[in-house]
Amino acid sequence: MFVFFNGSILEEDKVRISPFDRGFQFSDGVYEVIRYYPKKFFKLDLHIDRLKRSLSEIEIPSPAFDDLEFLLMELISKNNISEELSTAYIQITRGYQYPRRHNYSNDLVPTIFISVEKFPRKKDEMIDGIKVGIGEDTRWPRCDIKSTMLLAATLLNHRAVEKGLSELILHRNEKITEGTHTNLCFVKGNSVITPPLSNFILPGITRKVVLELCKVHGINFTEREISLSELAEFDEAFILGTTKEITPIIEIDGVKTKFNKPGHVCRKLQTEYSRLYNG
Amino acid sequence: MFVFFNGSILEEDKVRISPFDRGFQFSDGVYEVIRYYPKKFFKLDLHIDRLKRSLSEIEIPSPAFDDLEFLLMELISKNNISEELSTAYIQITRGYQYPRRHNYSNDLVPTIFISVEKFPRKKDEMIDGIKVGIGEDTRWPRCDIKSTMLLAATLLNHRAVEKGLSELILHRNEKITEGTHTNLCFVKGNSVITPPLSNFILPGITRKVVLELCKVHGINFTEREISLSELAEFDEAFILGTTKEITPIIEIDGVKTKFNKPGHVCRKLQTEYSRLYNG
Repeated sequence: MFVFFNGSILEEDKVRISPFDRGFQFSDGVYEVIRYYPKKFFKLDLHIDRLKRSLSEIEIPSPAFDDLEFLLMELISKNNISEELSTAYIQITRGYQYPRRHNYSNDLVPTIFISVEKFPRKKDEMIDGIKVGIGEDTRWPRCDIKSTMLLAATLLNHRAVEKGLSELILHRNEKITEGTHTNLCFVKGNSVITPPLSNFILPGITRKVVLELCKVHGINFTEREISLSELAEFDEAFILGTTKEITPIIEIDGVKTKFNKPGHVCRKLQTEYSRLYNG
Repeated sequence: MFVFFNGSILEEDKVRISPFDRGFQFSDGVYEVIRYYPKKFFKLDLHIDRLKRSLSEIEIPSPAFDDLEFLLMELISKNNISEELSTAYIQITRGYQYPRRHNYSNDLVPTIFISVEKFPRKKDEMIDGIKVGIGEDTRWPRCDIKSTMLLAATLLNHRAVEKGLSELILHRNEKITEGTHTNLCFVKGNSVITPPLSNFILPGITRKVVLELCKVHGINFTEREISLSELAEFDEAFILGTTKEITPIIEIDGVKTKFNKPGHVCRKLQTEYSRLYNG
């Protein structure tokens, strides 16, 4: 597999992340996952904007991303996946620092790693829907930064999967935030409802695109606080994410929902979303 | 520099952490820092116990640590620092996983990395004391696990250092938790006061040793919740940590304290602490 590492395209087993990279010792880095629909990266500009913001929030100097699209296409091509639904993964850390200290100097050289991967859609989940659970959001209060400080999210995700659940509806003090790596939407009547952007929520690209689709297609939407107690009243629910796109929720563990199959608002948005990358 | 990596002692630049190591992509790992006072590692058994607990809490299988002391001494010797005040750093991650997914399989092979380093005491800080600030604790609510999910702590630490402060007194809703990588103690009258162990606090080895010293030497101590508003009433304050040992606080940014130099309880504990490793 060919990857990009600090300026060069090379075989993955030639990459050497130092054990003194702050990304390894301090989770001191940020990342993005970008969808490749043959033959184009979807909303690349929005992903770059968010990556720059994440870097800025934790004060890692941002590289120039002028030739990023060219580079990503090169990786796709070198790995022979030009015709495949794929993803690119970009991780930037604060870089190597020795000796290990919590505090960092401001002149470290960031580590940049990019890989691409053939990544098929989970069609069954997108068509039939998924079962989710409810969990307490045990992440830090800056989830608006897409950092690699992901242990909390992965533990939550793993424990959900072990129970046969595909995702979790996370909450802080009974207020719904997001999934372990997705944003959440609900439908009441014909209105889409989603938690407002805040320090507790990643400003999802899919979330942004879906809210724009609502606007274009005359679907009401509201960004507001949502309590766990409202889950029983909703007519539809779905998760949003770069690879999940729009995936319907058909069951919430422990909640008697009004729905048990994907709803028509979800189907409409799925159709319109797919037009964006097929068109 | 010789380090230990997955079963072998080798030169640091021969170590290759994969970019798909979950320690790099998900901060999915734990660590310990252990003090070496020539010619012995201090409280190694307590550090191993804590490491095992951290691993267990995030469900990474624990290696056998039977020959750890021998291995650490070997590293000290190979790096020619047998006569030097030093530290050992141990990091264990969940290991390599491809492709990158939040969820992990239960059969990954943990990555084990150990380095040793000549690490002098900050004598001036221990003698003259330090200036600290106050900050909101923005870490996750499982600080009892010594995980590498440290971005929050390092950002807090860096911003403090930029302001000329050595540490921060962190709080959640005005209740004091700990420093960015130390535990905190205060003195009122002749009593030592420290926040009780909880999910918000690392069970510090130095903290444990100091509380035992209090017991042995007839110094009152209380583990109880402490409010920020109490800071103005204390007669002494100090931080505790593996390398900081017992370091007095002489100034708290923004607080008119009753002290401006190290107090006698701190001095007594410093003396008794140094006897433990000199004896």
